[in-house]
Amino acid sequence: MNKITGLIAATFAAYREDGTINLELIPSIVDKMVNDGLSGVFICGTNGEGPNLTIEERMAIAEAYVKAADKRILVLVHVGHSSIAECRKLAAHAEQIGADAISSVAAFYFKPTSVANLVKSMAQIASAAPNTPFYYYSIPALTGVGMDMISFLKEAEAVIPNLAGIKYTAATLHEYQACLNYRNGKFDILFGYDEMLLPALAVGAKGAIGSTYTFAAPLYLKVMKLYEEGFNAEAAATQLHAVNMVRELVKYPPIPAQRAIMEMEGFNLGKCRLPLEPLSAKESSDFRNALLEIDFFNIVKQACQLI
Amino acid sequence: MNKITGLIAATFAAYREDGTINLELIPSIVDKMVNDGLSGVFICGTNGEGPNLTIEERMAIAEAYVKAADKRILVLVHVGHSSIAECRKLAAHAEQIGADAISSVAAFYFKPTSVANLVKSMAQIASAAPNTPFYYYSIPALTGVGMDMISFLKEAEAVIPNLAGIKYTAATLHEYQACLNYRNGKFDILFGYDEMLLPALAVGAKGAIGSTYTFAAPLYLKVMKLYEEGFNAEAAATQLHAVNMVRELVKYPPIPAQRAIMEMEGFNLGKCRLPLEPLSAKESSDFRNALLEIDFFNIVKQACQLI
Amino acid sequence: MNKITGLIAATFAAYREDGTINLELIPSIVDKMVNDGLSGVFICGTNGEGPNLTIEERMAIAEAYVKAADKRILVLVHVGHSSIAECRKLAAHAEQIGADAISSVAAFYFKPTSVANLVKSMAQIASAAPNTPFYYYSIPALTGVGMDMISFLKEAEAVIPNLAGIKYTAATLHEYQACLNYRNGKFDILFGYDEMLLPALAVGAKGAIGSTYTFAAPLYLKVMKLYEEGFNAEAAATQLHAVNMVRELVKYPPIPAQRAIMEMEGFNLGKCRLPLEPLSAKESSDFRNALLEIDFFNIVKQACQLI
Amino acid sequence: MNKITGLIAATFAAYREDGTINLELIPSIVDKMVNDGLSGVFICGTNGEGPNLTIEERMAIAEAYVKAADKRILVLVHVGHSSIAECRKLAAHAEQIGADAISSVAAFYFKPTSVANLVKSMAQIASAAPNTPFYYYSIPALTGVGMDMISFLKEAEAVIPNLAGIKYTAATLHEYQACLNYRNGKFDILFGYDEMLLPALAVGAKGAIGSTYTFAAPLYLKVMKLYEEGFNAEAAATQLHAVNMVRELVKYPPIPAQRAIMEMEGFNLGKCRLPLEPLSAKESSDFRNALLEIDFFNIVKQACQLI
Repeated sequence: MNKITGLIAATFAAYREDGTINLELIPSIVDKMVNDGLSGVFICGTNGEGPNLTIEERMAIAEAYVKAADKRILVLVHVGHSSIAECRKLAAHAEQIGADAISSVAAFYFKPTSVANLVKSMAQIASAAPNTPFYYYSIPALTGVGMDMISFLKEAEAVIPNLAGIKYTAATLHEYQACLNYRNGKFDILFGYDEMLLPALAVGAKGAIGSTYTFAAPLYLKVMKLYEEGFNAEAAATQLHAVNMVRELVKYPPIPAQRAIMEMEGFNLGKCRLPLEPLSAKESSDFRNALLEIDFFNIVKQACQLI
Repeated sequence: MNKITGLIAATFAAYREDGTINLELIPSIVDKMVNDGLSGVFICGTNGEGPNLTIEERMAIAEAYVKAADKRILVLVHVGHSSIAECRKLAAHAEQIGADAISSVAAFYFKPTSVANLVKSMAQIASAAPNTPFYYYSIPALTGVGMDMISFLKEAEAVIPNLAGIKYTAATLHEYQACLNYRNGKFDILFGYDEMLLPALAVGAKGAIGSTYTFAAPLYLKVMKLYEEGFNAEAAATQLHAVNMVRELVKYPPIPAQRAIMEMEGFNLGKCRLPLEPLSAKESSDFRNALLEIDFFNIVKQACQLI
Repeated sequence: MNKITGLIAATFAAYREDGTINLELIPSIVDKMVNDGLSGVFICGTNGEGPNLTIEERMAIAEAYVKAADKRILVLVHVGHSSIAECRKLAAHAEQIGADAISSVAAFYFKPTSVANLVKSMAQIASAAPNTPFYYYSIPALTGVGMDMISFLKEAEAVIPNLAGIKYTAATLHEYQACLNYRNGKFDILFGYDEMLLPALAVGAKGAIGSTYTFAAPLYLKVMKLYEEGFNAEAAATQLHAVNMVRELVKYPPIPAQRAIMEMEGFNLGKCRLPLEPLSAKESSDFRNALLEIDFFNIVKQACQLI
Repeated sequence: MNKITGLIAATFAAYREDGTINLELIPSIVDKMVNDGLSGVFICGTNGEGPNLTIEERMAIAEAYVKAADKRILVLVHVGHSSIAECRKLAAHAEQIGADAISSVAAFYFKPTSVANLVKSMAQIASAAPNTPFYYYSIPALTGVGMDMISFLKEAEAVIPNLAGIKYTAATLHEYQACLNYRNGKFDILFGYDEMLLPALAVGAKGAIGSTYTFAAPLYLKVMKLYEEGFNAEAAATQLHAVNMVRELVKYPPIPAQRAIMEMEGFNLGKCRLPLEPLSAKESSDFRNALLEIDFFNIVKQACQLI
């Protein structure tokens, strides 16, 4: 697979009234992603509540996405789990159904204690889908596993033949820049912190994965276009809209708040699973008003016209 | 179920050469626990590598333990998982096979954010095994979930009818003492920090769950007996042997080091799963020598004669 | 100096209306400590707001305490500071005025990065008061410096001739027990977690330093007496009163809340310094009512009669 | 004072052989800063070992810098201390000697517990130098005080008339961008993470304070110039040199490692103070070789020609 450019949306889980997963909604989500100009979807990750789902549910969701995408956009399947044995099942399944790539966080109950240990763990997962590109998903704030990523690349490239790169979710852009430039850019280092997309572009990012791309991709694509064409100040002014939106968002638990935006956009995702809890009606309404006050919806709509 | 008194061993996972789980070894482990005077076993927890196993493996192990125990000692099944849906499967299964109790850590990828949220999460798990006593497994150092346990008991007693108590794995004995005395001792608060067993007895502990009870129970039972009979100084001197052993143990990753002791005792547990890694032959030999130097094996043997 | 037995009160700073230090109040504080059966005072520590005071103020307070104590009880002077040069000034001054011991936390802006580095730092402080016993003040929760204390004793005994022991403020009683027993009890390891005094006694504690001893010493002395005489259950029941009081206390910022208790006892300590803030009148009144509800004041009063 | 543009060097403490401070070296340090095109110096901060110095030493250093600078470049004096009373002494002194600005970290023993409490604490410091611009120095990784900086600005602007802005030392560029744009850019938000300078420029940074500007300012000034002129890719390539240098640097304790670079540049700074420890001769030599290997010294030299 070539390096990924553009934006990958980390999509949300969809549930029915009775709490079971809603596979029927997936085609319309995928269509929105295609229409919004995204390059792909990242499924069953943090945002997609992968760790809240059963193995069978994760497999069913992956199948639905691959089918709905129908090669129009990439499908990256997150296979991370506390049990590497379960990761391997998910990885093998993803390869079998034709996913474009797999990705995994570090084990998060027992945690890798060294780069070597992390590499061994990831190698065991990646080898279950040997013909599928593998991205290590680094998200220290959630997993508590924060190791030097250059050291990871160095040790991993020797033992993970299908290592494609890293989904890099951290604010440490100096390390991110170092990873981008490791061995003249051998690896694909996708940036995962939406509210810092422009700073990441400044050090060389070409692709990114994030949750807010699910509902605000046009805004970020405008940032990318402006920056690429040398309109640095305009790019910053546009990124500021994303920052302002995220500042409103993080006043609430972030995944439920973003699910509320999807509801506002007409996607009936249902209730997230415990320990996540949906925004109350009051919270959702307050949040919507706050977004209206910063003119968020219009700003995204106007950005659309650029694509 | 009445309150648990005495010691519950948090047993280790057993694997075959090919990495699959070894169910055949379980009867001999249970027999050792019976002979060593334990009150029960706690299975598929931290020590038992629950989070490293698949759901099917966990169920198979639970069945093997319940069968091997044959009501001679209690079997407590840990059902914790990042996905509450998976927890519920494990809980229902444990009830169906006749486990004496179930227990669960807080979800550990997405983490409970308040006592109320933790209680809701635990209620959803406990209700899947409504006729089986439920123990919340509090282990903040591993899960990062550290909330006030008195508040937990207050909120949980109203909504978890089968709440039996807490497996309390933390050094904060003042909170532990408060929990023991909550509503005149309504709940069973099992202590989970072996190297602090005597201090816990001093504030009223009657039961404890721990990993080192798997191979050193007689030593701790001696501590309990001495303390109960008012030989306070002798109890402290005996507890000191446990402290010294644990100090050697924590020079290595604790679970692999304890598995090495089991190997020394003749139990071929096989290799633990990544991200855990077994001690090297050299480490194991050094560790054994360190234990010999503090006369650990003889001390446990001599303590046996008391039982 | 022999080992310290009994209780040392970590006293509070006293301020005048205008915010300057109130030295006039010190004699009455010392008299209370003598009457309450304490063995000494620990001054200018965490509780005494040492880090909030200027060097000159700390020296003036130390002088006032040494004079007021007049050898009736011990005076331990905390000399910790982010600057070791300032620590040394305070240490030399304490020796010169005849303090019974000095003590220091680890530097807390730049933090020791290894046991060897911590020992070098403490040696530089202790050597400024070469004829005065030195206690390392270990309080990882506040300083973020948490190292193995046995390793500290091993490395420090060679280079700090006046090392007397450790003021050990942490819940890890297994390490505490190991320290107590290091080299057959060579060092004086004073326990610093009041709400866990009884558990500490169970592993061999003979002396303790704490803030709540300032206003509730009789309660704790009763715990010590009961435990020493073998009334284990009664000791636990008495310690529970302390636990209950501390549980009320920690609903507020702990130092201001304890200062409020001193006010209730008739000591006009004035307002603590920023970033600490005094309890509001409403908070203070609520807190007093909560203490009345658990009958705290009477319980302490009745305990007095035992001394 | 207008907003600061360009780079401010956080200079290092200089000591004599006997460990006392070396004031004589300050003029040559200042001259280097002037020649290297810096806009000012930030003294007695983290890098300048402020917390390791006595109050008297800090005052003497401030005086020497103000005198040596002689209005050619700005002098910003860090007055942070665990004791606000000491902060106020330093602040009043800085104003009296004509410092261009003062700055303070949050108190770091007792730590502010809310934005309101932080604002009160900073107001007490700033008011001791009422005619001098005040910058709050936010460095959560060192102080453990990490609060929302927009909330800080909102609450502080009402009560700190001389609030100039923030020295912002964190990787969270979305918050940094929000601060830059607060009230149409009312405040001066200086960026403090050298290895992320370019990303900060991308969101609108115009000024920065950092330690590596002491010895590598030309490299960073080149980044600023390239970025300003729209040479985005070249700016990234130049920033990468800084990233590579910092990656070598952080293999050692960062302050001692940077002091070693200054020694390589001919500045005899002497030994840093405990708990900091200088690099060993071997480490220093290895470090120098590593810097030679990435051609660091030549790269800086060539960048000089641009200024």
